[in-house]
Amino acid sequence: MKISIAQLNYHIGNFEYNKSLICSSIHKAKAEGAELIVFSELSISGYPPLDLLDRYDFIERCSRTVNEIAIECRGITAIVGSPVINKNPEGKKLFNSALVLSEGKVIFSANKALLPTYDIFDEYRYFEPERNFNIFTLNGKKLAITICEDLWDEQLFDNKFEKTRLYTVSPMEELNAQKPDIVINIAASPFSYTKTESRENIFRGKAKKYALPVISVNQTGASTELLFDGASVIVDSKGNIYHKLPYFEEAVFTFDTEKLSSEPATSNKKTDPVELIHKGLVLGIRDYFRKSGLKSAILGLSGGIDSAVCLCLAAEALGNENVRSLLMPSRYSSEHSVKDAVELASRLNTRYDVISIEKPFSAFEEDLAPLFAGRERDVTEENIQARVRAVLLMAVSNKFGNILLNTSNKSEAAVGYGTLYGDMAGGLSVIGDVYKTDIYRLAEHINRNEEIIPENIITKLPSAELRPDQLDSDSLPDYRILDNILYQYIELQKPPEQIIEDGADADTVRKVIRMINFNEYKRYQAPPILRISSKAFGAGRRLPIVARY
Amino acid sequence: MKISIAQLNYHIGNFEYNKSLICSSIHKAKAEGAELIVFSELSISGYPPLDLLDRYDFIERCSRTVNEIAIECRGITAIVGSPVINKNPEGKKLFNSALVLSEGKVIFSANKALLPTYDIFDEYRYFEPERNFNIFTLNGKKLAITICEDLWDEQLFDNKFEKTRLYTVSPMEELNAQKPDIVINIAASPFSYTKTESRENIFRGKAKKYALPVISVNQTGASTELLFDGASVIVDSKGNIYHKLPYFEEAVFTFDTEKLSSEPATSNKKTDPVELIHKGLVLGIRDYFRKSGLKSAILGLSGGIDSAVCLCLAAEALGNENVRSLLMPSRYSSEHSVKDAVELASRLNTRYDVISIEKPFSAFEEDLAPLFAGRERDVTEENIQARVRAVLLMAVSNKFGNILLNTSNKSEAAVGYGTLYGDMAGGLSVIGDVYKTDIYRLAEHINRNEEIIPENIITKLPSAELRPDQLDSDSLPDYRILDNILYQYIELQKPPEQIIEDGADADTVRKVIRMINFNEYKRYQAPPILRISSKAFGAGRRLPIVARY
Repeated sequence: MKISIAQLNYHIGNFEYNKSLICSSIHKAKAEGAELIVFSELSISGYPPLDLLDRYDFIERCSRTVNEIAIECRGITAIVGSPVINKNPEGKKLFNSALVLSEGKVIFSANKALLPTYDIFDEYRYFEPERNFNIFTLNGKKLAITICEDLWDEQLFDNKFEKTRLYTVSPMEELNAQKPDIVINIAASPFSYTKTESRENIFRGKAKKYALPVISVNQTGASTELLFDGASVIVDSKGNIYHKLPYFEEAVFTFDTEKLSSEPATSNKKTDPVELIHKGLVLGIRDYFRKSGLKSAILGLSGGIDSAVCLCLAAEALGNENVRSLLMPSRYSSEHSVKDAVELASRLNTRYDVISIEKPFSAFEEDLAPLFAGRERDVTEENIQARVRAVLLMAVSNKFGNILLNTSNKSEAAVGYGTLYGDMAGGLSVIGDVYKTDIYRLAEHINRNEEIIPENIITKLPSAELRPDQLDSDSLPDYRILDNILYQYIELQKPPEQIIEDGADADTVRKVIRMINFNEYKRYQAPPILRISSKAFGAGRRLPIVARY
Repeated sequence: MKISIAQLNYHIGNFEYNKSLICSSIHKAKAEGAELIVFSELSISGYPPLDLLDRYDFIERCSRTVNEIAIECRGITAIVGSPVINKNPEGKKLFNSALVLSEGKVIFSANKALLPTYDIFDEYRYFEPERNFNIFTLNGKKLAITICEDLWDEQLFDNKFEKTRLYTVSPMEELNAQKPDIVINIAASPFSYTKTESRENIFRGKAKKYALPVISVNQTGASTELLFDGASVIVDSKGNIYHKLPYFEEAVFTFDTEKLSSEPATSNKKTDPVELIHKGLVLGIRDYFRKSGLKSAILGLSGGIDSAVCLCLAAEALGNENVRSLLMPSRYSSEHSVKDAVELASRLNTRYDVISIEKPFSAFEEDLAPLFAGRERDVTEENIQARVRAVLLMAVSNKFGNILLNTSNKSEAAVGYGTLYGDMAGGLSVIGDVYKTDIYRLAEHINRNEEIIPENIITKLPSAELRPDQLDSDSLPDYRILDNILYQYIELQKPPEQIIEDGADADTVRKVIRMINFNEYKRYQAPPILRISSKAFGAGRRLPIVARY
């Protein structure tokens, strides 16, 4: 059987757009002789629609769009993903469905049985799990249609406290009893740089176990903070990858199921995580702007590595003509800061303006002098400087419509080394899920062909430059040590004792964990952070602010 | 049988504190001759512990604390709530359990079967639902022990799109087959001013249906944004309320189950929603500070009604000596603004300082003049003023340790009538779940015995005073019209067409909904908002920022 798979970049709630994406792929597939074309999970609505699913008007739009697309399915069958109403009197109001469309009608539906409800997933919030499993037969081939997590009944979590079997049902076991010929999996599986291989292994493992080809279709593109990498794979019945669609790109691919085992269509070369992170972040920025109808960005360029990397990513995502920066030296800025920043902005051919923060900073100091009389200078004055910069950036943003990109990294965000309403401001955090040590890797990757980021920006010691001769290392452990502890505590969720036992210094571990927990209140107000790891700050990590732990 | 119910105010993760609260209640109950004392859901850990439940070390602390409390149960039995590890190889890693403790041991456990996963609830994220139901017999009485939602298998939602039966199981049907004598329900049921009666009706309905007394135990107190009102009720087997514990207060109450039907212990007088909201907000502020180890607050006092109401609530919650305010007039401030604000601060005997924002505002204008040359003044300059105020407030906050209270109301937050990093700043939003029209009701309630808030603050027309002669009504519909649309769209989640059909002006409805949806990005960065309604901005309402709908 000839099948097309469509790995597309949907826009949540933009039904006209999603419909036109889907319909043009249907026509392309038909032209290529496909009998079936498969789209990804919730392709009609975009994923994740979150609480838009609580709106009856939203679900009606989904259903109307499905019917409009069904009309386009003449001489070809399509599988699309959509929420549908659960007509049973009991249970959640919706199913997360794969709908088979043909000749103007919905001729079959399979509902998702395993509803992920961990990290960024909240599917049981909206959907009733399916308990009945049926095969769909098309042109003599029996298709086991599964939806994303349905094949993930066994998986390994970074947090060893999680079970490998989160569910008491195995949809493939049920479907296999009905002797299918092909497994189809429609997914909306977000990117994490540690998970690309294990995702493939899920599909390869199921193919081998049931001796069936597995055809997976993931979406690509970004929805606010979530990055979807595509990388849809076609696996033959021996568990070998026949073909893999590209990372972070749209693609429609047509193949013949009869030829799966004979000739692998691609070599499955290892991918470099830093390269994927780079691609993902660029797409994340681009989609945030494009899907919001925005065009141009602004950021504060300090002369440090974080803002330098962000400027490079933004220029690549939006075009150098659409990114501007402000250089905002203070009385404490080192000479090289402005020089290095100017050098970078010039190399990238992006606009920059220099505004000293001295005048408003002094005005604040004067205004507050009577209240602060007799008090030492402290972090207050450092925060004022960071906030003056945010006021300037937001003023340019408001006047010219450039969206402020936040340039904080994950290490800072973790320990609260940042100023609320200051350097924590922005519409989107570009590198808030990238540890400082990985920022250096990103910088090297950006410089892989030529020196774009000036060497001095990469080699200088990290400093906030908010008081004379300040260095990050005055307040924080060395970033290699810090990031190692952070990763074990945040991503792996190891108990503190375990981290110490595994070799980290006990006092440092306790101090770092105290800082993480204390700063939940700051992160609560941070912008959305492009997610590249298995545990990013934001929607996938929910901690009480008022707690003692 | 003599039973005590303990309605207490727990602290998430503060095991020592929770243990001492529980143990002193056990000793009190024993002294009063109780055979059994019942604590609320997850009383060991505090509710909601959120992703702390993903930490093995946290669960171990829970288990250790349970064992320590069991040792205190000599001659008395206690029911406490705690997460416990699910030892089955499949399913989520935890159960949400009611543990029966006696003579140093856990002698019985009942696990929660219905796990709410809507609005602020995410219980299926952590817990496996129980599928087996057993009665516990104590001193000859058969107890059906249920946990919160277990009795809510039938409920009415504000959103008519939701089913009344969210679950396919009814725990009470299962338990009733085993012929219990008494139903116990341990809960952590958050406050919503529209839900107090329906909660009682759930318990009364179950009592009547099964002809059994229902003993409910709720927690009180606040956890960050969530308010728990207590109001635990004891219902006799005819469905009459025998006794109700107070709203928003701790209480331990001992009674004899033999006397339930003969003599109602309290008259169940109607409660005034505004009075409850007032109580709840005061407790919310108090607990945020107390449980965070904080003492004092600051807020910006504009002379308008929102900040006036917040100052009154904060002074009541923290003591007048612990609340200070800044009055920050600009060139556009009306004369009465400072005068009214001074009058209020003085009446409350709270400290205030006056700092004009002119100097830093002018400094920003000068700095930005070259960039802004040839551009009209617009919302940019308004936002700069709001942000200058935030810098001043945060500077005093940083220098003296006063936490900034945010004074935005729900109507503003809904339509984005506020400045990010300006008047949207703060550690806690006091009235962000209170519509503007209800702010007036709160003000009247505060003034019920004497005029605390000066009449002029209440009667003046709302204005942000960010440009000459500005009024809220220049940009927004009349607040009565606006709030009516907001309530229907946000709380009731009605389709726009339905709101129009029900009498609202079509253009206004569409404009307001556009504003709500467009401003998701602003609310994403808002502080936690004390929740008083069935649908507050924050954790209970999750919408994509990058969507077109």
